Amino acid sequence: MPAPPRRLITGFSNPTVKFLRSLRDKKHRRREGRFLAEGLRLLTDARESGRVPEMLVMSERRDPHPLTDLLERAVEDAGGTIVETTPDILAKITGKDNPQAIAGVFAEFDTSLAALDRGSAPIWLVAQALRDPGNLGTMLRTGDAVGAGGLILIDDCADPFGVEAVRASMGAVFTQKIAQATWDEFLPWLRSGSGQLVAASLRDAVRYRDAPYTAPCFILVGNESRGLPEEYEAACDLRVTMPMRGRADSLNAAVAGAVLAYEVLATFDK
Amino acid sequence: MPAPPRRLITGFSNPTVKFLRSLRDKKHRRREGRFLAEGLRLLTDARESGRVPEMLVMSERRDPHPLTDLLERAVEDAGGTIVETTPDILAKITGKDNPQAIAGVFAEFDTSLAALDRGSAPIWLVAQALRDPGNLGTMLRTGDAVGAGGLILIDDCADPFGVEAVRASMGAVFTQKIAQATWDEFLPWLRSGSGQLVAASLRDAVRYRDAPYTAPCFILVGNESRGLPEEYEAACDLRVTMPMRGRADSLNAAVAGAVLAYEVLATFDK
Repeated sequence: MPAPPRRLITGFSNPTVKFLRSLRDKKHRRREGRFLAEGLRLLTDARESGRVPEMLVMSERRDPHPLTDLLERAVEDAGGTIVETTPDILAKITGKDNPQAIAGVFAEFDTSLAALDRGSAPIWLVAQALRDPGNLGTMLRTGDAVGAGGLILIDDCADPFGVEAVRASMGAVFTQKIAQATWDEFLPWLRSGSGQLVAASLRDAVRYRDAPYTAPCFILVGNESRGLPEEYEAACDLRVTMPMRGRADSLNAAVAGAVLAYEVLATFDK
Repeated sequence: MPAPPRRLITGFSNPTVKFLRSLRDKKHRRREGRFLAEGLRLLTDARESGRVPEMLVMSERRDPHPLTDLLERAVEDAGGTIVETTPDILAKITGKDNPQAIAGVFAEFDTSLAALDRGSAPIWLVAQALRDPGNLGTMLRTGDAVGAGGLILIDDCADPFGVEAVRASMGAVFTQKIAQATWDEFLPWLRSGSGQLVAASLRDAVRYRDAPYTAPCFILVGNESRGLPEEYEAACDLRVTMPMRGRADSLNAAVAGAVLAYEVLATFDK
């Protein structure tokens, strides 16, 4: 079998370089339906989860690695493109001074509620107007750890396909389902089947420890500054309160979601 | 009583502006022994915790607010300085396009282990080589929530007095004790009194749920990429394991610390 064609790109003004750079911008990601993930570890997580990049971009000065070989083969087998380029151009593409030696372009996934199978997992995470991409990625990572089905993003959240969210997810962006919806789409969808909606709250709440959680349990976390709108809290099946021993009355959103998710997991495991 | 003198600064090249800007840089913070905190909420948290800025910097175009009045009075009573300046200069100082209308300069706190009273709280958080200032601030915030005494930073951690860590702490930088030490300083200090050292671990570990935690409990979290060195884990009194149902074998460092801290708190509250 002949070796598949490879492209070598050495010019900063090459259209492929411009295309790759543009993927750092949400508007362009949306238009192209593509996103960028960097680093051998992340790309290997993707491959092992059955996600193969359409395009693999590698530094011509990379160290050889068996995982890189596996990635190259997977991309070739899937009919994708392999591009080699200079470290300088990779730095320009990723916007980092010390870029990873490898990056991949992926097609964005279907993020409709309709694509979720709620019965496939006992726990789902739901974030409302979560603005920080690091928090979003961390919630994906936590979801992976607790065996959640995925993360549902309500209203105007950070972009799950942005570089920072993808990085913070530590590969969970490839293993967790992701859905995006408005509250007015989410609530009817939730009520069209089984599912308990739970939020941390200071109002009319029971203690979070050993509360009556039932599967599938949807754990709802609110915006970093404003928390959840009151009407969203009111629509929950269960409001739980966590101890707050200090001056503040709230936790970081991703932390609150994680403490609740581990509590729900422990309850289900009993 | 005559109104105290105020300074109005309108020039970008004013030495005070240069001094304030320099506090965004760790090297200059160390040299000056000062750090910057921004925003009325954060400064009010500080004031209510008994921490009054040495210098208050306010936009001349701020909205009047009773909490601002209280801050001004506190700074005046403590013999501090009040500076008014333009929004443009405040933006330059804070490095943000839409700066908060108020900022304060604080003296750094004593961060020696000797300043800690381990008996003053049942829980202490300990981070080793924690590099992300957002994670560091989040751990301070979690510490406040669980009633921890403070955060001990081992080896080469992010700077707790950097703007991002201060911001992520949501004021907890003013309520939690902070200590900085090497492992070789920390371990003898810990063993010189009572204290249980606990880490999440995959090696030789018991289930984290209802493990035999005892106060004062020191919860040790490792570096974001590498986790804890094996010898640090080996020195712990208790190694606990948390369920990992997904592909990954670890959580975000601040999340892992929070899930453990809430578990310890629940155990102590029984």
